[in-house]
Amino acid sequence: MAREWTVGRYLARRLEQVGVRQVFGVPGDYVMGFLEEVVAADLEWIGTCNELNAGYAADAYGRINGVAAAVVTYDVGGLSLLNAVAGSHAERVPVIVVSGAPPTIEIKHPHVLHHTTGDLDAQLNAYHAVTETAVQLRDAAQAPDLIDAALATCLRQQRPVYLELPMDVVGAPCRAPGGFRPDVALSSDPEVLDEAVQEAAAMLSAAASGVVMAGIEARRLRCDVQMQSLIEHLGAPFVTTCLSKTVLSERHPLFAGVYAGRMGQEGARAVVEGAEVVLSLGNLMTDFDLGFYTAQLDPARLIVANSDRVRVKHHVYDQVDLRSFIEGLRRALPAGPFGESGGNGKAAPHRIPAASRPAARDDASPLTLAQFYARVGDLIGPRSIVVADIGAAGLGAADLLMPEDSLYLSQAFYMSVGWGVPAALGAGVASPGSRVFAFVGDGALQFTAQELSTIVRLGQDPVVFVLDNDGYTVERVIHEGPFNDIQRWRYERLFEVFGGPPGLRVATPGELERALEHIRTHPGEPLIVDVVIARMDIAEGMKGLVAIGGRSTPGA
Amino acid sequence: MAREWTVGRYLARRLEQVGVRQVFGVPGDYVMGFLEEVVAADLEWIGTCNELNAGYAADAYGRINGVAAAVVTYDVGGLSLLNAVAGSHAERVPVIVVSGAPPTIEIKHPHVLHHTTGDLDAQLNAYHAVTETAVQLRDAAQAPDLIDAALATCLRQQRPVYLELPMDVVGAPCRAPGGFRPDVALSSDPEVLDEAVQEAAAMLSAAASGVVMAGIEARRLRCDVQMQSLIEHLGAPFVTTCLSKTVLSERHPLFAGVYAGRMGQEGARAVVEGAEVVLSLGNLMTDFDLGFYTAQLDPARLIVANSDRVRVKHHVYDQVDLRSFIEGLRRALPAGPFGESGGNGKAAPHRIPAASRPAARDDASPLTLAQFYARVGDLIGPRSIVVADIGAAGLGAADLLMPEDSLYLSQAFYMSVGWGVPAALGAGVASPGSRVFAFVGDGALQFTAQELSTIVRLGQDPVVFVLDNDGYTVERVIHEGPFNDIQRWRYERLFEVFGGPPGLRVATPGELERALEHIRTHPGEPLIVDVVIARMDIAEGMKGLVAIGGRSTPGA
Repeated sequence: MAREWTVGRYLARRLEQVGVRQVFGVPGDYVMGFLEEVVAADLEWIGTCNELNAGYAADAYGRINGVAAAVVTYDVGGLSLLNAVAGSHAERVPVIVVSGAPPTIEIKHPHVLHHTTGDLDAQLNAYHAVTETAVQLRDAAQAPDLIDAALATCLRQQRPVYLELPMDVVGAPCRAPGGFRPDVALSSDPEVLDEAVQEAAAMLSAAASGVVMAGIEARRLRCDVQMQSLIEHLGAPFVTTCLSKTVLSERHPLFAGVYAGRMGQEGARAVVEGAEVVLSLGNLMTDFDLGFYTAQLDPARLIVANSDRVRVKHHVYDQVDLRSFIEGLRRALPAGPFGESGGNGKAAPHRIPAASRPAARDDASPLTLAQFYARVGDLIGPRSIVVADIGAAGLGAADLLMPEDSLYLSQAFYMSVGWGVPAALGAGVASPGSRVFAFVGDGALQFTAQELSTIVRLGQDPVVFVLDNDGYTVERVIHEGPFNDIQRWRYERLFEVFGGPPGLRVATPGELERALEHIRTHPGEPLIVDVVIARMDIAEGMKGLVAIGGRSTPGA
Repeated sequence: MAREWTVGRYLARRLEQVGVRQVFGVPGDYVMGFLEEVVAADLEWIGTCNELNAGYAADAYGRINGVAAAVVTYDVGGLSLLNAVAGSHAERVPVIVVSGAPPTIEIKHPHVLHHTTGDLDAQLNAYHAVTETAVQLRDAAQAPDLIDAALATCLRQQRPVYLELPMDVVGAPCRAPGGFRPDVALSSDPEVLDEAVQEAAAMLSAAASGVVMAGIEARRLRCDVQMQSLIEHLGAPFVTTCLSKTVLSERHPLFAGVYAGRMGQEGARAVVEGAEVVLSLGNLMTDFDLGFYTAQLDPARLIVANSDRVRVKHHVYDQVDLRSFIEGLRRALPAGPFGESGGNGKAAPHRIPAASRPAARDDASPLTLAQFYARVGDLIGPRSIVVADIGAAGLGAADLLMPEDSLYLSQAFYMSVGWGVPAALGAGVASPGSRVFAFVGDGALQFTAQELSTIVRLGQDPVVFVLDNDGYTVERVIHEGPFNDIQRWRYERLFEVFGGPPGLRVATPGELERALEHIRTHPGEPLIVDVVIARMDIAEGMKGLVAIGGRSTPGA
């Protein structure tokens, strides 16, 4: 006899159907019933050391897999997870949050329940602010429709949703799930779309030069291929931002670098700020995208298309979806207004730096951050994933020139320091055939270091570079004080204490060379490398920040 | 010339005035201006590895010091801290949360700002649910009054408050603070109070036996002395709960044990459930206080007094404050209705177990949890603080008979697993002359292990016992599954990797004896002890849970 469908089983089935293969989370009594369904379904449970880390791991997983799920218990779990979900919301990562909850009888006949604040709507209210939709599944008959609507919203908006599942509803019978093919396409008003396309096309046609800022929403909304086609059709150079880096290949002949005003690459800045028209496709245009107000972007020469609207100069077209706008522009424009179609025309393609030679076997002088990044890029091959935490040192990873078929992940807008290590875990789960290289500041590592143990438990093989500059260097740049000091750990021993192999400590160029050689010859093994650099040795981009006085800056 | 008063300086001064001496937190750009004021004031900055841990540390500090403060940056900081504040709210710990925020210009002219979700009220809304009052200090002229009102509320209600301080308001001029002596006493309606006291006194006078459940609110509202006086006046035995343990001395002749229905001590259960009248003073009467529905407490023989109301049988007197009610009862009742005043009358005082002898030098048989707790109690002397995390093993610490002038801390209602290690840090900061003994499950330790490094940085000397039963044993009791497995760490090496001394691993009674000897002979040094026990070796109280089928249970 077939097992009866219950709300918990229904939800687990739907997670499978939308493409979730692994589920991140931490058990707890209010969610045990649903965990049973997760295990019984075709879903792999990835337990993390705490809930915030589960959320960060799910976030990175979602960036690669296209959708993710995090499962936690009530309040102590859900409220601990909240900040990670806020990051996914800000950067448009579709994460399905499932929280257990006390039984529904408690709504009518409340006791003073452990794991609660006494208000059984408190967690829901907190989640409203950081999700696209947040619902309580308190009625088994309605639950299937609420689940289906929430998951469709998650996929359509590419933002987190929250489902609260009381412990007595998990096992309540409900209808069979059947198939699930929700309509998740964003749509446009045809007349608004047409007018927006015509105006943008006219602006581009009349310009002697143009540049495309390729944004992350194109990846989320699965129109990155269309975006590349438009770029090639225009023959326009394109840049990315720290958030969208690798949304298109950095080996494309039209690639002109990573833009972030005076905090990004100088070549990219010249191309963007020198163009007559800047076409931004799917960029969030955050303060960091714009180099903390160092960007010189006259609105009069800007076309900014996002998921569901287009801004041209100072006016806005609502109800224009990104994909339709890109496809419309492709049709409306002649090939190669800025050069030969597919050629590089007036583009100033990003110059690929020659791999720097090892500084002999220098063991006498201290290693610098610039030396480190100049050499470490050689490790990054096809099918690599670079995970860069935020900070004065991690930011340098944005300058690595990424090979074909590789991926760069950074929480470059919400910038929750500590995201890196759990994100490396989540990236490894999503893409087991890839090797993960994580660049994490020492301060950032301390936020979430325990998740290195889950990496060991799962047998993953990332290389984690701890950029060890003895404190919160970003904050030192802004405002020095005793609050920027941290305890100096023996970082290279962390994997070991969690049951993994010993790590390495490098403080000179020679030691770095030997470490790189070790990494090349030890695939399949996780490694942590304590990269000792001077306290105020900061990434190139940060120097732009110092120059402008750091009035508003990245880093927690 | 005197330095001008600004909102930031005003708030720092007020923190000093209400009794905050140390401030816990993590820096971040939106809060740097206020951190400057913290450092300039007579406040010590205690940086933690992440914000959740700052919140847990502040919570424990507040339980001892009477008030605490946690300072964080916007969203990435504030939302990470939220769960710890929810715990303080649930268990009535007065924690003042200060969060930096983007400048007020962003309210009128918003940019897409890093560290935000795009909604500058999102964090405030999340905090409404877990604080007594949450306010944005967006106007320098109003800020002093808002600050004063919030701090008075914090002290009066003994619950957290939230102050959001935009980065441009920190340095804005405001009036001088002057003195600060807010009226924080809760008050009663005299007629309601009188009627409640008369009815309760009549019930107690008519009963042949009675018992007092001494609750944590008596400590928070500073009427524990009055509560003890009433108990002695009645000659009634008293019990505590896991949450209120040590609110009165466990060496008091009328002490009858720790009550938690069938999950607590059998002697306490006999006294409470056998009494004709049960007088509960300041207990939250949570599901755990009541042994997860195993308590046999007929409402018809219950008097439950809380901070601001009294329930007798099935009816409620509002606007009756705990202190006035206790003092009123003391006046209304003749001495010793249940025995000689100050004697133990019909009490069945808690039997102090004879210190068990070391099991020779047994190195052959595995250590049991019962053996561990039977022996470890010898370490706990006057001026000790026991910090017990929640879980199948940590719960056993509730059975330790605490000496005079010692303190037991446990988050026995909100039960956020992982609270223990940061709480040990916070307790050590609040009470530098005490020695802290922390009892933390292996799963619990993994949530927040990095805070051991702050313990090393500050030169604290706690003993941290990791009760290492290889996974989430509480959850195994409820619902076994692969989600209850964790990675086994080399726990005894954690302090070492953070720059401290090596730890110990004990797996036999003989090894335990040598570890105890080491601890006795090494005061002033932090030590971590990996206490290896069998997977399902659980605390006595948990056995009651197993017996009832674990339908709703402690632990995350």
